Amino acid sequence: MSRFLSREAGRLAPYTPGEQPTDAQYIKLNTNESPFPPSPKVVKAISRAELLKLDLYPDPTCGTLHRAIAAYYGLKPENVLAANGSDEVLAFAFRAFCGEGKGVAYADITYGFYKSQAALFGLNATVIPLREDFTLNVDDYMDFPGTIVIANPNAPTGMTVPRTDIQRLLEANPNRVVIVDEAYVDFGTESCVPMIFRYDNLLVVQTMSKSRSLAGGRLGFALGQPELIADLNRVKYSFNPYNINRLSMEAGAAAMADKAYFDACCASICRTRAWTAGELENLGFTVLPSQSNFLFAKSDRIGGEELYRTLKKNGILVRWFDSDRIRDYVRITVGSMEQMEALIDALTALLEAL
Amino acid sequence: MSRFLSREAGRLAPYTPGEQPTDAQYIKLNTNESPFPPSPKVVKAISRAELLKLDLYPDPTCGTLHRAIAAYYGLKPENVLAANGSDEVLAFAFRAFCGEGKGVAYADITYGFYKSQAALFGLNATVIPLREDFTLNVDDYMDFPGTIVIANPNAPTGMTVPRTDIQRLLEANPNRVVIVDEAYVDFGTESCVPMIFRYDNLLVVQTMSKSRSLAGGRLGFALGQPELIADLNRVKYSFNPYNINRLSMEAGAAAMADKAYFDACCASICRTRAWTAGELENLGFTVLPSQSNFLFAKSDRIGGEELYRTLKKNGILVRWFDSDRIRDYVRITVGSMEQMEALIDALTALLEAL
Repeated sequence: MSRFLSREAGRLAPYTPGEQPTDAQYIKLNTNESPFPPSPKVVKAISRAELLKLDLYPDPTCGTLHRAIAAYYGLKPENVLAANGSDEVLAFAFRAFCGEGKGVAYADITYGFYKSQAALFGLNATVIPLREDFTLNVDDYMDFPGTIVIANPNAPTGMTVPRTDIQRLLEANPNRVVIVDEAYVDFGTESCVPMIFRYDNLLVVQTMSKSRSLAGGRLGFALGQPELIADLNRVKYSFNPYNINRLSMEAGAAAMADKAYFDACCASICRTRAWTAGELENLGFTVLPSQSNFLFAKSDRIGGEELYRTLKKNGILVRWFDSDRIRDYVRITVGSMEQMEALIDALTALLEAL
Repeated sequence: MSRFLSREAGRLAPYTPGEQPTDAQYIKLNTNESPFPPSPKVVKAISRAELLKLDLYPDPTCGTLHRAIAAYYGLKPENVLAANGSDEVLAFAFRAFCGEGKGVAYADITYGFYKSQAALFGLNATVIPLREDFTLNVDDYMDFPGTIVIANPNAPTGMTVPRTDIQRLLEANPNRVVIVDEAYVDFGTESCVPMIFRYDNLLVVQTMSKSRSLAGGRLGFALGQPELIADLNRVKYSFNPYNINRLSMEAGAAAMADKAYFDACCASICRTRAWTAGELENLGFTVLPSQSNFLFAKSDRIGGEELYRTLKKNGILVRWFDSDRIRDYVRITVGSMEQMEALIDALTALLEAL
């Protein structure tokens, strides 16, 4: 930290991303990437002709990409704003809808980045504890006057909030925005997207990093009524008008268009998740009911940190959070069947050796 | 604008990027792109193997890219922070070094985005007029206690500030940061990069959008002493830790490594610039002395707006700024010789018809 750092930057709470080690080859089950490569249509879309156009700025309005996302959901392009990962979408939304006199509320156990972004904009953040069983009680949010952010399904638990609960939140106070972060929605949770027609205070945020095998392309998007999207654009054009590069734009549009590939990948991950959860339970793990592409699990025979460290020594990376209520758990990405078999084998050996 | 917009977002000053029309084919001389495609090494770097890895997150530390940039300049990776275009670099720097009690100063005629970003962070901005002849008088900045941003060469004039002047600014007050925005430095201006070893309050910002033919890849970078770079990382990890996608990362590293191609492109643009400036002067234009890849020119026979509109009708896009002191001028990107010949032909015909 230099002597030049502003007071505001001093108060930031930088996010710690999952390890991306380069020292060795790991079975990487720590950042919820897809075990599948991107759609063949994505690979084809990044043609030589596209590469030769890299000297030209991308379309700042992201026309092609917005149309592809809108087409998938039966929306209009003006219902869509794409950005450089859902992290950037969330940053735009936090700036657009929160500020002086307009705080933000989120759960105590949820995506850690909300805290970082609240600090980035100096927001008054209200942290509302999940129930003992990690379910979210929407009644705790009913009277909150500011912006509400709910990850659905939640990270790192993988647990969902019923759509009717979110509907109650939207109706209880039509003068606040509810942001539903659906990063993991495609693995079995009912999406709130169809509700954006009815509620002008609903913003749904999704990502292409998980179900669409494009974490390396950095693409996320927000869906909502045109007025909300216009607010996000106001922030985008104040921060980085050309926020999405040409190649990611093409990749994202191609990924949205290949529904068959997307459906097959999601179905496969759901099957592998069911198998893995069963095996973990056979090994005595408590596994939270996940509707995402990861499992949150604990053993009463070994602590979360020790489990994480031992697996890492055995070449398998999972994520452990050094945080009060979830210290006993590890978060395990649902990878390929081969990766999951290797995990279960390693866990079996590890528990036998205890 | 929705009823949910925060007060802070209401005070934003969104930037208006140059037109990117899709309705017709134009000779596009309005956004200072390179007339050359990216280096063949860039095209080769985006291999099928790289595309098949798009399901994996990019390296958040941008190791490969930082090493390539550092190698080009004889620096260490800890002297470098790359981001999603120099716009994102600038945003990180504004947040890191400005805030409460720490304003920012820049010229009245300069890159319009400084104003947008000052508004984004609610900064107290001091706008200091250039001299009548559009030169920047560093003495006007000597007593300013906050962060100073100088585009060198300046946009949209193309004119430079001597390095000795910047040195005086750095020495006059070692407790403020001077950001030198060298977006256009590779077309004939002396870079301040060698001075970062001597001055810990100097941050140099560059882009790959102009001289490195990568506007479509969205890459910019900051160079400075490790403490300044660490401050920028603090903001980056609060905003978007995985800010650069995999493909741009590869493209940028390859572009930095191909010095021969880069040198040839820059030399060609400088030659074309000299020819074009001469032809414009032959047509009676006043042309500011540009060390960039654009020319800022005015005619006393036709106003800037009319010139811009007439050229557009003739299929040539230049940029006109609806702003007091520069209303008579248009900014013309130095494109290929063929494009410049077409421009001069169009201008000749246009002036004859007056």
